[in-house]
Amino acid sequence: MYPYRQLFDFTREIFLRMGCPEEDARLATEVLLEADLRGVDSHGIARLSGYVRLWDAGRINAKPQMRIVHETPSTATVDGDRGLGLVIAPRAMAIAKEKADRVGTGWVSVKNSNHFGIAGYHAMMALEKDMIGLAMTNASPLVAPTFSTDRMLGTNPIAVAVPTNLQPPFVADLATSAAANGKLEILQRKEKKAPIGWIQTADGKRTANPHELKEGGSLLPLGSDRTHGSHKGYALSAVVDIFSAVLSGANYGPWVPPFVSFLPLAENLVGEGIGHFLGAMRVDAFRPANDFKDHMDNWITTFRKAKVKKGEKAVLIPGDPEREMTEKRLKKGIPLLGPVERDLEELGKKFGVQL
Amino acid sequence: MYPYRQLFDFTREIFLRMGCPEEDARLATEVLLEADLRGVDSHGIARLSGYVRLWDAGRINAKPQMRIVHETPSTATVDGDRGLGLVIAPRAMAIAKEKADRVGTGWVSVKNSNHFGIAGYHAMMALEKDMIGLAMTNASPLVAPTFSTDRMLGTNPIAVAVPTNLQPPFVADLATSAAANGKLEILQRKEKKAPIGWIQTADGKRTANPHELKEGGSLLPLGSDRTHGSHKGYALSAVVDIFSAVLSGANYGPWVPPFVSFLPLAENLVGEGIGHFLGAMRVDAFRPANDFKDHMDNWITTFRKAKVKKGEKAVLIPGDPEREMTEKRLKKGIPLLGPVERDLEELGKKFGVQL
Repeated sequence: MYPYRQLFDFTREIFLRMGCPEEDARLATEVLLEADLRGVDSHGIARLSGYVRLWDAGRINAKPQMRIVHETPSTATVDGDRGLGLVIAPRAMAIAKEKADRVGTGWVSVKNSNHFGIAGYHAMMALEKDMIGLAMTNASPLVAPTFSTDRMLGTNPIAVAVPTNLQPPFVADLATSAAANGKLEILQRKEKKAPIGWIQTADGKRTANPHELKEGGSLLPLGSDRTHGSHKGYALSAVVDIFSAVLSGANYGPWVPPFVSFLPLAENLVGEGIGHFLGAMRVDAFRPANDFKDHMDNWITTFRKAKVKKGEKAVLIPGDPEREMTEKRLKKGIPLLGPVERDLEELGKKFGVQL
Repeated sequence: MYPYRQLFDFTREIFLRMGCPEEDARLATEVLLEADLRGVDSHGIARLSGYVRLWDAGRINAKPQMRIVHETPSTATVDGDRGLGLVIAPRAMAIAKEKADRVGTGWVSVKNSNHFGIAGYHAMMALEKDMIGLAMTNASPLVAPTFSTDRMLGTNPIAVAVPTNLQPPFVADLATSAAANGKLEILQRKEKKAPIGWIQTADGKRTANPHELKEGGSLLPLGSDRTHGSHKGYALSAVVDIFSAVLSGANYGPWVPPFVSFLPLAENLVGEGIGHFLGAMRVDAFRPANDFKDHMDNWITTFRKAKVKKGEKAVLIPGDPEREMTEKRLKKGIPLLGPVERDLEELGKKFGVQL
């Protein structure tokens, strides 16, 4: 178990050594480690060395000059200048919030960025201003559309955060695939089988092999198969891709740059970097904020009281498991798997930083 | 087979006899029959008598005075005055488009409305102005949250329409449940079994009985079970409920009024009527419209060319099947099932209108 503070200081130091300005290093660290706090271990410090390798390969700019390239009162398109998505996305969300302050809502599409950590962090930035926050991003192609065997889409997450009064906020943060890639990585490490409906083989057959992606297999959209609505997961993932990248001018579909530095970029790129889409809506742009938040409290307590199926503990509200995990890990520390520990030690050596 | 024109004239006449103004009757007819054209038979003319019964029961106002009760440059909250959702929703979408014209995007939350037909119609209204359209609505509670056996949410659809240049537009229109209720109705009529993963019994067991809802069963969210991501379908459905009703002041969750007039309203209503959420984003609020539409064409042709799984015909783009159905039905006519024909004949008699 590592105290949050210890991992924070280490991570910030690594970002500083990469050349990030002080403020960027702090922000990137906060965003990255939010994943570890919330229990999304695949998107947190376990990825730090991946970001460093992308920087080594010249695909991440540690000192980006982010700029607005197009705007209206309620929208902006941002060029992330190949910066860390961990820095570009929250800055873009800040722009969305400023616009919402002035005209009710703000919507920012981002190009030329990189992976932005967990979508939930950016959506939750809206909460302190009594705004609803939305965040999406496209990602490296791993998911096949319904009826296809080609990897055409990322796990393209959607996050929505909604403010409340007495209840904790509603925070949905979901990959539009049947399972996020991080869940697969856990099964791979433990050499366990995957549920049928998460993955298909290179020729489109059902498989429980979590290593199938290495053999040309692909992840399945939310819904898993046509009968159970995989065309809906595919459509939602497509919407994320379009809002994040076709609107902004980033790469979309099979052209989205891979997170791993050892894979080459696709040929004939159709845009710049990875794309995100961020939105903020002032709730008092629709009705008085306190009315809204009181009704959200009522919504949440009503759903919590719904009848629980035999064998289950409780009906959960989106955000519940992650909030409980955050409380636990802030108190007891963050566990790191052996390979992640060794990876971080290597990284520490490279930069002369003690974990 | 009935020619579109014949069903149009009949339906418009019924709305006129209900007391709808000329323009409203035409609009309601166009919206309702768009479902029949697109092959969503459950949401089209088959529901006409249901709307009439709600009007008979005093739950629909044929002459609504729709008004904006709250607004900012990019948002509005609309009171639908218990009007037909078929009329209120497109008028609300027109407001969203006006706002988008002025400040880049427009977002309208609607309360005190009724069922609005298919979400896709309203989203597609944005296309002619080179805008992306969004439409959602909540609906009568039939779906249980993950781990619950209580019906707390509707099939709460999301539609997104995206303009293109040479390709037909991208139109996603999906219920956030594993299967829309209309699909179940078809199985009921044909006395066929439902796939496992669509429905659960009153005590939360898997079932293939399409009549299970009458026995206290419920529909399952997209994803079907926790392992396959039903918590994601539940979260998306919740977002639709919150945007449509908690933002606007409509009824949400278990309080949403039933479509069938013989079921009573819930006690202690938390809002007014049913809620919708409509959005329009000018694509040139993000980048030049032609650049965007060229890249959408490229997105579509790229996905169409993805490798097809053995045994399947083609990789589809959201909107493809509905567009093909529309072309076919405009040419060959719209088929009506026996019970629907008899229902419409009854309705004709009631109002003295010939089908």
